[in-house]
Amino acid sequence: MAFTKPSIPSGTRDFSPLEMVRRNYIFSSIREIFQLFGYLPIETPAMENLSTLLGKYGEEGDKLLFRILNSGDFLSKSDKDAIANEDSLKLSNSISEKGLRYDLTVPFARYVVQHRNEINFPFKRYQIQPVWRADRPQKGRYREFYQCDVDTIGSDSLLNEVELIKIIDLVFTRLKIRANIKLNNRKILAGIAEIIGQSDKITEITIALDKIEKIGREKVIAELTERGISKDSVDRLGPLFNMSGSNEEKIIFLEKYLGSSAVGLEGIEELKSIFHFLIAFGISSQLEIDLTLARGLNYYTGCIIEVKAMDAEIGSICGGGRYDNLTGIFGMEGVSGVGVSFGADRIYDVMLHLNLFPVEAESGTQIIFVNFGHNEAFAVLPVISKLRSMGIAVELYPDSAKMKKQMSFANINNIPFVALAGEDELSKGQLTLKNMKSGEQETLDFEELYKKFGA
Amino acid sequence: MAFTKPSIPSGTRDFSPLEMVRRNYIFSSIREIFQLFGYLPIETPAMENLSTLLGKYGEEGDKLLFRILNSGDFLSKSDKDAIANEDSLKLSNSISEKGLRYDLTVPFARYVVQHRNEINFPFKRYQIQPVWRADRPQKGRYREFYQCDVDTIGSDSLLNEVELIKIIDLVFTRLKIRANIKLNNRKILAGIAEIIGQSDKITEITIALDKIEKIGREKVIAELTERGISKDSVDRLGPLFNMSGSNEEKIIFLEKYLGSSAVGLEGIEELKSIFHFLIAFGISSQLEIDLTLARGLNYYTGCIIEVKAMDAEIGSICGGGRYDNLTGIFGMEGVSGVGVSFGADRIYDVMLHLNLFPVEAESGTQIIFVNFGHNEAFAVLPVISKLRSMGIAVELYPDSAKMKKQMSFANINNIPFVALAGEDELSKGQLTLKNMKSGEQETLDFEELYKKFGA
Repeated sequence: MAFTKPSIPSGTRDFSPLEMVRRNYIFSSIREIFQLFGYLPIETPAMENLSTLLGKYGEEGDKLLFRILNSGDFLSKSDKDAIANEDSLKLSNSISEKGLRYDLTVPFARYVVQHRNEINFPFKRYQIQPVWRADRPQKGRYREFYQCDVDTIGSDSLLNEVELIKIIDLVFTRLKIRANIKLNNRKILAGIAEIIGQSDKITEITIALDKIEKIGREKVIAELTERGISKDSVDRLGPLFNMSGSNEEKIIFLEKYLGSSAVGLEGIEELKSIFHFLIAFGISSQLEIDLTLARGLNYYTGCIIEVKAMDAEIGSICGGGRYDNLTGIFGMEGVSGVGVSFGADRIYDVMLHLNLFPVEAESGTQIIFVNFGHNEAFAVLPVISKLRSMGIAVELYPDSAKMKKQMSFANINNIPFVALAGEDELSKGQLTLKNMKSGEQETLDFEELYKKFGA
Repeated sequence: MAFTKPSIPSGTRDFSPLEMVRRNYIFSSIREIFQLFGYLPIETPAMENLSTLLGKYGEEGDKLLFRILNSGDFLSKSDKDAIANEDSLKLSNSISEKGLRYDLTVPFARYVVQHRNEINFPFKRYQIQPVWRADRPQKGRYREFYQCDVDTIGSDSLLNEVELIKIIDLVFTRLKIRANIKLNNRKILAGIAEIIGQSDKITEITIALDKIEKIGREKVIAELTERGISKDSVDRLGPLFNMSGSNEEKIIFLEKYLGSSAVGLEGIEELKSIFHFLIAFGISSQLEIDLTLARGLNYYTGCIIEVKAMDAEIGSICGGGRYDNLTGIFGMEGVSGVGVSFGADRIYDVMLHLNLFPVEAESGTQIIFVNFGHNEAFAVLPVISKLRSMGIAVELYPDSAKMKKQMSFANINNIPFVALAGEDELSKGQLTLKNMKSGEQETLDFEELYKKFGA
């Protein structure tokens, strides 16, 4: 029988032990900080009913859902017209009822509505699970990837935004990534649109502001005109093009600029309040008001947050904001929430690039015992047990293979110490410990060994 | 717009914070012990190519695979004959290329073959991930559930079996579940079949032995005869029906009984060797030779392991064994492996039933600060920050809601301490700490508070 080398679906990944240990370092750092702030974990199933998922991510998103084929004789209930017309999309609705989750936000909204009677609001939850998207795979974009979401739902208080920004600050400080936390507010953008008399053009205006640095003022004005924004409105936008300086200076400028827009001033007040509390907290990361953040504009209703790594050229490594009607899609109105999502894959790439993974995050086994045969193995097992009970990861090489092979195994697996306990040494209750980095060897009795690795 | 209450697919589950904290207690206990023994984590994608999965679990297993519908215009490449004949199974092969993993064993075999050149054998890996099966959902059987697998591949040494049994012992000792570890060996069963002259009837014989206690000797003999086993063979099986006593007595009996079977004696030698080493290790769980273990007989080639909880009526909570040709299904021959799998859902049920979850595993936030309004919140944020930097999980109630609501939130969420710092107290640098269990209150200054929760 001929075999082809097995492979995995394009856009998916195997994670090797080294990659896992590094990824777990990221996840456990994030998880630990979420918990310090009182956020609790939940998990939802990989499969959701398509009725839960469809229509939540736009028409393009619907196409990117991985659908599960119904089990058994699915053809008997299939849409015969769709088959006749070769309409795959239409047919899929009759032969598929479930899909893989596309993000953690919609499942969270579904969870909150479904379990509303068991939940004690405000509900502070985090969720770290993979999601699946039938995107075209490319460098840095996968069809299966993890999201780490943290949200509070059922509280309007800006303290939630403040705590989330502090969480972002602590996570990236812990991971040693210098972070630039950019803040915007949907209400400020709405205020600007109002001021220039184009309340329905928030998105266009934000995109235009975003392009100033890249393509220059002239081209942005041309683009805006093309999109049907009058010369008068463009002129009134003018002062914003020159806005610069510290966050305080930006706030002073915007307060004046938005003076006649109630919603705009509300946005400014929110921003001021968040800054005020963050001072009480103390924060290490850079904070920057950035009106060009257009992230999830159809979705966020207040504060918008996006984080960039200062020392790596990569997209945002974390982002989120305030949404006032997440659960509305499932018929539960008037529940406000705010949350952010950490991009584990990009954080991984940044840390690898900047060499930020600590050595501790990469070592597994501390000591490996060379296997000299049956009797010697028998004699060292209690020693190994004792070391493990002290919390030290220890291996015994399973086969009494050639010394060279066993030493090379230790070397390749980066095991820092090799213990050699042959017949002679064992008869004296001793062993030789070799430090694989320095090459030094020392002879120890068992008690000395325990002491060396003890607290 | 009318909404129906959202739901999840049958056989799947949401995990609430309390369930997650308990499950994580199980997973992290298991993970920690795996790592102490030098096992390293890997992860594989949820989706595998169907060419990897099909034919590995028998015809029934193939039907239980969840298949992913191909994206885009899948009908254009579909099997038109299958549509015309309404043959769903045949059609599914032309409109679906990927499936959800059914277990962790086949993906592990695929991983080893695919990455053989990067792996340093013997390869000790563990893997904790969900699997999916389109089984009919029923009590205790889910369509999505976690498996925790630990395997060594590329070593024939029985020390691997010994280490795995020691891992089982440590895991259940840690979780406070009294475990009965049952051992069998495929070679002993082969020896018995040889001795009675029925080498091709291993499975039938094992099942018959299993039924002795339930249906009695007479009925078992009748069944065996019905399955085409001669009277003479059944007679020679007789002495086994009476086998009893300690493990040592069973071994002495079997050595005599299997005296003329080379493979049978090999099995006995393996069992003796495993017991010998386990004595050196020391083991708390009960060990029992049980010839009726028929688990995975088509699959295991040596030692067979199955674990039952002694204080709960439930199926096996862990099981596994030695397989000599796992990677052969992908064309890589002659690689022997041994592994066990922990059943997280059953372990959870046993621990819940026996009330074994420690209180620590259930508490999240240690202290919640009552929110008295903007100024008070501002003043306590640095105190909260300091406590968190000490590793204590602390919350500030986000809204300045009525005291009753805030206290009730603390109560429902089982938060052990409530900190009250109103204007008066803050002006003296103090706060009142209420112990929610005892109801006691004490007034502390901030330094006293840190000391109380410090190391």
